[in-house]
Amino acid sequence: MPGLFITFEGADGAGKTTQLALLADYLRAQGWPVRCTREPGGTPLGDAIRALLLDPANARMAARTEALLYMAARAQHVAEVIAPALARGEIVLSDRYADSTIVYQGVARQLPEHELAAINTFATGGLEPDLTILLDCRQEVLYGRMAGRGAKDRIELEAARFHEQVRQGFLRLAAASDRFCVIEADGSVQAVHAKVIAAVQQFLDRRGSR
Amino acid sequence: MPGLFITFEGADGAGKTTQLALLADYLRAQGWPVRCTREPGGTPLGDAIRALLLDPANARMAARTEALLYMAARAQHVAEVIAPALARGEIVLSDRYADSTIVYQGVARQLPEHELAAINTFATGGLEPDLTILLDCRQEVLYGRMAGRGAKDRIELEAARFHEQVRQGFLRLAAASDRFCVIEADGSVQAVHAKVIAAVQQFLDRRGSR
Repeated sequence: MPGLFITFEGADGAGKTTQLALLADYLRAQGWPVRCTREPGGTPLGDAIRALLLDPANARMAARTEALLYMAARAQHVAEVIAPALARGEIVLSDRYADSTIVYQGVARQLPEHELAAINTFATGGLEPDLTILLDCRQEVLYGRMAGRGAKDRIELEAARFHEQVRQGFLRLAAASDRFCVIEADGSVQAVHAKVIAAVQQFLDRRGSR
Repeated sequence: MPGLFITFEGADGAGKTTQLALLADYLRAQGWPVRCTREPGGTPLGDAIRALLLDPANARMAARTEALLYMAARAQHVAEVIAPALARGEIVLSDRYADSTIVYQGVARQLPEHELAAINTFATGGLEPDLTILLDCRQEVLYGRMAGRGAKDRIELEAARFHEQVRQGFLRLAAASDRFCVIEADGSVQAVHAKVIAAVQQFLDRRGSR
């Protein structure tokens, strides 16, 4: 593919949407054609699938059904948006992609990671990002505070535990693949943005020199 | 599972729906609890997914999206209908199941069969039918007639070729697995029904004697 495919991953609240928009501005200012997109969704059919996923009437949805619906939306996203933009030579920035399903469905639904990875390969036709920016938030301070408040905050503690499992899930994927760049995202928006453009610029330079 | 899971497969028009209903009557008359169901669909969520598959507004649906939507509907069908009925000891009769996706998406969309099989395993949690009745229709006479009509009937000839590919696809699956019983379905409804109950009765007897 002549274009470049960059994904943002990380927990909710890590700043993916903000950082993606800032990176798009930075790249456009350099003259690159940039296409911003996101998952789940990204296409009309993907939005219809997303509506099924969010509809409270579908409360009995099985974990495997949920995972396959995310995968179906992704297949359409690749076929209709990402692959054509890459073929035109654009830089595609996606807010979440295949890694999110592996981490969230693996952690939250206990679905086997290697099966999810195989279905991702089918859904995407094997299209992997050139670069994945993992915005990693340490929240020890927050967890410490929650844990100190005792039993009445069990739900918050559970949420913190879930967040930590998701965080470790992403870090595990990052450790296993060269395409990840892990960026500590606890700082200010501008501080994180500076790290993001440093990483992307380094990637572009290395790519240009090949 | 204490119940028994029987699927009907074959081309459209082979008589699956009719034969399934007749078999259900036969089994109920013998005192068995029978649950009839069908794919795609079988659950409210499955019907909503089916509506997406049939909606002309989704004409740009990618082949992989389509396959994954069928798989999502199947996952829900297993979780919500088939597995609970089998757990209650019922005989579940399904009009189409996993084999249909392998044959139709493989033949019509040229998707790799082994990948479809792996996703079926994920979607169903590995639940395979105890017995699959393949209603096999020979249509040589029909094809011969079409071919004789010349070039103007290319679409019909194409349809006949497609039907034959689907037929051969099912026969190939049947040859590779013991759970299939291939029944020649060119005869009258009653003649085919007699063969179906002979096959099912033989299966029940063999099962009872174990």
